[in-house]
Amino acid sequence: MASVPRIEQALLAAIEPGEQAGCPPQLAAAVRYAVLPGGARIRPRLCLAVAAACGEDHPAVVDAAAAAIELLHCASLVHDDLPCFDDASTRRGKPSVHRAYGERLAVLTGDALIVLAFESLADGCSAAPQRLAPLLRVIGRAVGTGGGIVAGQAWECEPRAVLAQYQQAKTGSLFAAATLAGATAAGVAEAAPWALVGERIGEAYQIADDILDATANAAEIGKPVGRDEALGRPSAVAQLGLQGAVALVRRLVADAAAAVPDCPGADALREVLRAQADALLPRSLRQAA
Amino acid sequence: MASVPRIEQALLAAIEPGEQAGCPPQLAAAVRYAVLPGGARIRPRLCLAVAAACGEDHPAVVDAAAAAIELLHCASLVHDDLPCFDDASTRRGKPSVHRAYGERLAVLTGDALIVLAFESLADGCSAAPQRLAPLLRVIGRAVGTGGGIVAGQAWECEPRAVLAQYQQAKTGSLFAAATLAGATAAGVAEAAPWALVGERIGEAYQIADDILDATANAAEIGKPVGRDEALGRPSAVAQLGLQGAVALVRRLVADAAAAVPDCPGADALREVLRAQADALLPRSLRQAA
Repeated sequence: MASVPRIEQALLAAIEPGEQAGCPPQLAAAVRYAVLPGGARIRPRLCLAVAAACGEDHPAVVDAAAAAIELLHCASLVHDDLPCFDDASTRRGKPSVHRAYGERLAVLTGDALIVLAFESLADGCSAAPQRLAPLLRVIGRAVGTGGGIVAGQAWECEPRAVLAQYQQAKTGSLFAAATLAGATAAGVAEAAPWALVGERIGEAYQIADDILDATANAAEIGKPVGRDEALGRPSAVAQLGLQGAVALVRRLVADAAAAVPDCPGADALREVLRAQADALLPRSLRQAA
Repeated sequence: MASVPRIEQALLAAIEPGEQAGCPPQLAAAVRYAVLPGGARIRPRLCLAVAAACGEDHPAVVDAAAAAIELLHCASLVHDDLPCFDDASTRRGKPSVHRAYGERLAVLTGDALIVLAFESLADGCSAAPQRLAPLLRVIGRAVGTGGGIVAGQAWECEPRAVLAQYQQAKTGSLFAAATLAGATAAGVAEAAPWALVGERIGEAYQIADDILDATANAAEIGKPVGRDEALGRPSAVAQLGLQGAVALVRRLVADAAAAVPDCPGADALREVLRAQADALLPRSLRQAA
């Protein structure tokens, strides 16, 4: 999956209008800081790859969907890092937003990114306005109270949570939205089968993140490591061992490729997804390494 | 302005779908707690009154717009009350959300309300999908980085802020959106002149809030009083004196009534707005009292 320059351009287009319309300077700076430079951009890349496979006809709609998904991901990182949650000091290799700009601006930056995500959807859909409502629903559900990211984070506040439900809400939901939104943005009327592709990639990503947390050092991944163990969080590495976790990543990515529905670019997309299995793992654990 | 049952119904319709789809119980409870029972619901009432004056043809669209505006207002209250901002212990006569549910759920409740607001817009506009994009833009701008509520709150984090710009962003923007959205939801193609009506009501409300803060007791208004003075915030009462501030409320409401554009129910709406001048003030300062 390539397309990173296209994603960066779409993200800039989403955050610039607010900056120009009299945004307080520190808020504008904190929003940029939270979004740029980014991580792997895996969710918007997945969205673009699916839209391309489906034969996208309105690139602006696809760009807006991909940008909205990444902005919402960035919002969740900023709020998850807050002192009342993870109290993370670093993120993407630099101080977290609340360490760099203070807690108040970190709360507001997350809020701003949520609003910007939905605004950018409305702007991007002007050439195909009938796609706005289905895209808004798909993306809203992935971040909201009913099984979205906010629900996932809130499971951390409950005395009991079902692990699969927690992970599906916290991580899987936005991956599923990335593939659903890619197909919806490309005009696919029955996009529902695309959810499974994103869900499997999301599960693979979750396991790969556990592997990174257990094996990498902080400089390598740009955020604190060993947090799962320190915070008593469930980890696939603790449950399955390192080799078992790596095998699971490969199987989940293969499942994702197998779940790709018929579409003009299905074969090419399956190849792209399979190549992702290695890209998700630390260099020392890749087959080609 | 009446219509409170209709607003409560629209708010319930907006928050229930997320609850039914597997929302963590404490998050669902905190979202309800933040929304119900409400305050004066002045913004959604203004939205409904304008839509009625414009001859609304799709009540579901108007309901969704009014609910979205109130949900976003509630979100801003929950986040403004957080320890890192006002650290308010009470709101609407009961413990603030972070006092009742903890800081983590208060952050998530605000996030959830923002998402619910936009989701409810998409759902409500299914009978008139072409109104979704303009409504989303009007409402998004009122809460976002470019002069919306988030920008207003962020001016509190800047070393210097222009008072008028701060107040317009923090309070005026959502009042302007209430009238703009009411007209837009009713199908008015050129809704822009409606902004001034909301802005003037918003300014009146801001001054009336300063008057309440300076004159009422906490039991009467359900939140701490004397906060403006304690936090060194600018207050119209400090600047103009009590009688001057009361006169300004009356003048601003009269300006709002005078700014009502031609529409089928313009005269009735002007009467409703004028009656609001007294309703905004403490009982002891009302002309009819």
